[in-house]
Amino acid sequence: MISRVLTAELAEHAGQRVTIAGWVHRRRQLKSVSFLVVRDRAGLAQVVVVGEPPGLPREESVVQVTGTVRTGPRAPGGVELVEPEIEVLSEPSEAPPFDLYRPVVAAGLPTILDHAPVALRHPLLRAPLEISAASVAGFRQALDGLGFTEIHTPKIVGSATESGANVFGIDYFGRPAYLAQSPQFYKQAMVGVFERVYEVGPVFRAEPHDTVRHLAQYTSLDAELGFVRDHRDVMVVLREVVAGMLESVRGRAAAAVDLLGAVLPEVPSEIPAIHFTEAQKLTDSEEPDLSPAQERWLCEWAVREHGSEFLFVTGYPMEKRPFYTHPDPARPGYSNGFDLLFRGLELVTGGQRLHRYDDYVAALDGDVAPYEGYLQAFRYGMPPHGGFALGLERWTARLTGAANIRQITAFPRDLHRLSP
Amino acid sequence: MISRVLTAELAEHAGQRVTIAGWVHRRRQLKSVSFLVVRDRAGLAQVVVVGEPPGLPREESVVQVTGTVRTGPRAPGGVELVEPEIEVLSEPSEAPPFDLYRPVVAAGLPTILDHAPVALRHPLLRAPLEISAASVAGFRQALDGLGFTEIHTPKIVGSATESGANVFGIDYFGRPAYLAQSPQFYKQAMVGVFERVYEVGPVFRAEPHDTVRHLAQYTSLDAELGFVRDHRDVMVVLREVVAGMLESVRGRAAAAVDLLGAVLPEVPSEIPAIHFTEAQKLTDSEEPDLSPAQERWLCEWAVREHGSEFLFVTGYPMEKRPFYTHPDPARPGYSNGFDLLFRGLELVTGGQRLHRYDDYVAALDGDVAPYEGYLQAFRYGMPPHGGFALGLERWTARLTGAANIRQITAFPRDLHRLSP
Repeated sequence: MISRVLTAELAEHAGQRVTIAGWVHRRRQLKSVSFLVVRDRAGLAQVVVVGEPPGLPREESVVQVTGTVRTGPRAPGGVELVEPEIEVLSEPSEAPPFDLYRPVVAAGLPTILDHAPVALRHPLLRAPLEISAASVAGFRQALDGLGFTEIHTPKIVGSATESGANVFGIDYFGRPAYLAQSPQFYKQAMVGVFERVYEVGPVFRAEPHDTVRHLAQYTSLDAELGFVRDHRDVMVVLREVVAGMLESVRGRAAAAVDLLGAVLPEVPSEIPAIHFTEAQKLTDSEEPDLSPAQERWLCEWAVREHGSEFLFVTGYPMEKRPFYTHPDPARPGYSNGFDLLFRGLELVTGGQRLHRYDDYVAALDGDVAPYEGYLQAFRYGMPPHGGFALGLERWTARLTGAANIRQITAFPRDLHRLSP
Repeated sequence: MISRVLTAELAEHAGQRVTIAGWVHRRRQLKSVSFLVVRDRAGLAQVVVVGEPPGLPREESVVQVTGTVRTGPRAPGGVELVEPEIEVLSEPSEAPPFDLYRPVVAAGLPTILDHAPVALRHPLLRAPLEISAASVAGFRQALDGLGFTEIHTPKIVGSATESGANVFGIDYFGRPAYLAQSPQFYKQAMVGVFERVYEVGPVFRAEPHDTVRHLAQYTSLDAELGFVRDHRDVMVVLREVVAGMLESVRGRAAAAVDLLGAVLPEVPSEIPAIHFTEAQKLTDSEEPDLSPAQERWLCEWAVREHGSEFLFVTGYPMEKRPFYTHPDPARPGYSNGFDLLFRGLELVTGGQRLHRYDDYVAALDGDVAPYEGYLQAFRYGMPPHGGFALGLERWTARLTGAANIRQITAFPRDLHRLSP
């Protein structure tokens, strides 16, 4: 390995001669002194070159710089490298389409996305991906601590059964097949094996609308657990998971959070929950689902009334939930399904599922043939269970305040975009 | 949550009245005493029912049993539940197609795979998936500790550029697209952003051959890192990763390892490495690649000569490696690519990659148009870098001694199989 210290570690080496390596983030050549700002995975460091402009490597050159660590109030971050020897490891073949050293990338979103491999090097565009990575680590850690087992399930499925619409078709060795819209059926089946399972993986939606919050591929954080009394046990686990994700972001992505000025929410020890009918009353509505405007209003209400940025809405009407949703035994027509709203938007959908074979047959009006593989698990004894799915990109967008989900997705896929 | 203790915790509650929950693994009704073996995610527990056969719930019923914990040498595992109250939470609608309580599932592999949701409940079939989950946790932990960042990359790509063959075609909003065969291009691009990245995700191969070691979808453990001197730095990281995976399996999946009688390998502090030309000499070959028989022979040789079940073969001929492979500057025609062999089989492929734009243009004979998105990162300065990919299912099969990779894959996809 190239022997080096990271820029963030320089202060620990004051007075010593050390080597750093990274990209030339910026060069500034003045008459008698020049500066090279070097960017590595940990941050930025200033290199001071005294004397005539020496023909410094241009921006995005990859360099290795050996110099003496000098601390002082004039250096950015209180530390810089002086008396440098600079070695160029690799040179760009052309200048980037925008300056990465400016506070923000001076380009529209389509240009940024077209040049994602270089645009993502900008600290402001990289930071959300650090928050994503930390979030996923927190998701897993919380569930590992609760006895969950990680699974990996098929993304190619034989029938478009889950929702029927918005599926991508594949040519599977000459047969029609489809990209999985979720691991729903598999995670339920695996409750029969491990009781508690989770999966972090891509899901695919042939979403024909061009919106700021839909992608054709996104990363779904899925969990499912057995031996619940009802959906409320799932909500308790979800609360732990969200708290764990935020704790991980605070611990592992603190610099990214600071850089973005993101304000992380507090998770109440018990997230406020209202029944769907109560949400209807509050928003003066009789519709069987909540509109985006109603979701926004309810989130403001939860902040105002409960001091919580999170709000559970439970008991959505059965007609608006998928067929595997468990009804509320006490309120015909309403379900044991819930949404978790956060900052104006649905963030998580979950609920208790049916667990008896006969209930599935009834829910499907006897049309079980296309669901044969799915229903198998329920033929052989399944415990009461439930789970939830959280879209990683939507979560990160909400945390960072990104207006468009594409801003925080490394290489988004949508109706129009298939590269890079 | 249903308030209960796990079967594995029963011994801690000797003499107490506790509740367990799980599946009826086996019932045995005798004249004056009956036994119910309950299976939960932690193991098995015996419940003793004294008196006339009471009509116990049949196998795979989901039950909750409250009883008194009695320890004694006659109980399996030294502990059992007596004076039980049994509540049936859910009944199977039919008997499983094979007995799950037998030492092995008495069915052929196709039958087992057709009934995966229930077959995987068998402790011997579940255990490999526990080893998989522990392996992935170890993979991430090792790389997290080395400053790697987790990424999630597109599985739908616009051109079938990486290898050209064996790709699945998709209808992407009326345009042709393909399922990604690896995250190769994206992980390289992300080295420009994070320097060190990894991804755990599905990859897709339209593998037209029906073999015991190929799947149409598998889980690829990918890592890529910048600022390497050459491929040997990648090999050092890979050694740490493999050791971390095994440590995690020992720690998190000890029961599964015991149950399967799997013998975990030791990882030498330095894995022996031989150059491809040396491997040719040893196997008396002049072919530009190693055959399966040669790989087996070399693995036996490494055990014999070096006491290692792992063997690196480095310097494969350039003609047999993908175009992004970095050549060996000292030996024209040979590469800085390597394979890691383990127990007779190639387990990991890796190497140093090209990092200069001009080198890519030359490697592609100027035919850069289909690679435009990929090559972007290299236009703007990339450090010397390399990486590797390890197939999770292949790893688990080798660790557990499974003859067919389908035995240790929850819901395999292949030429013939698209469900469940």
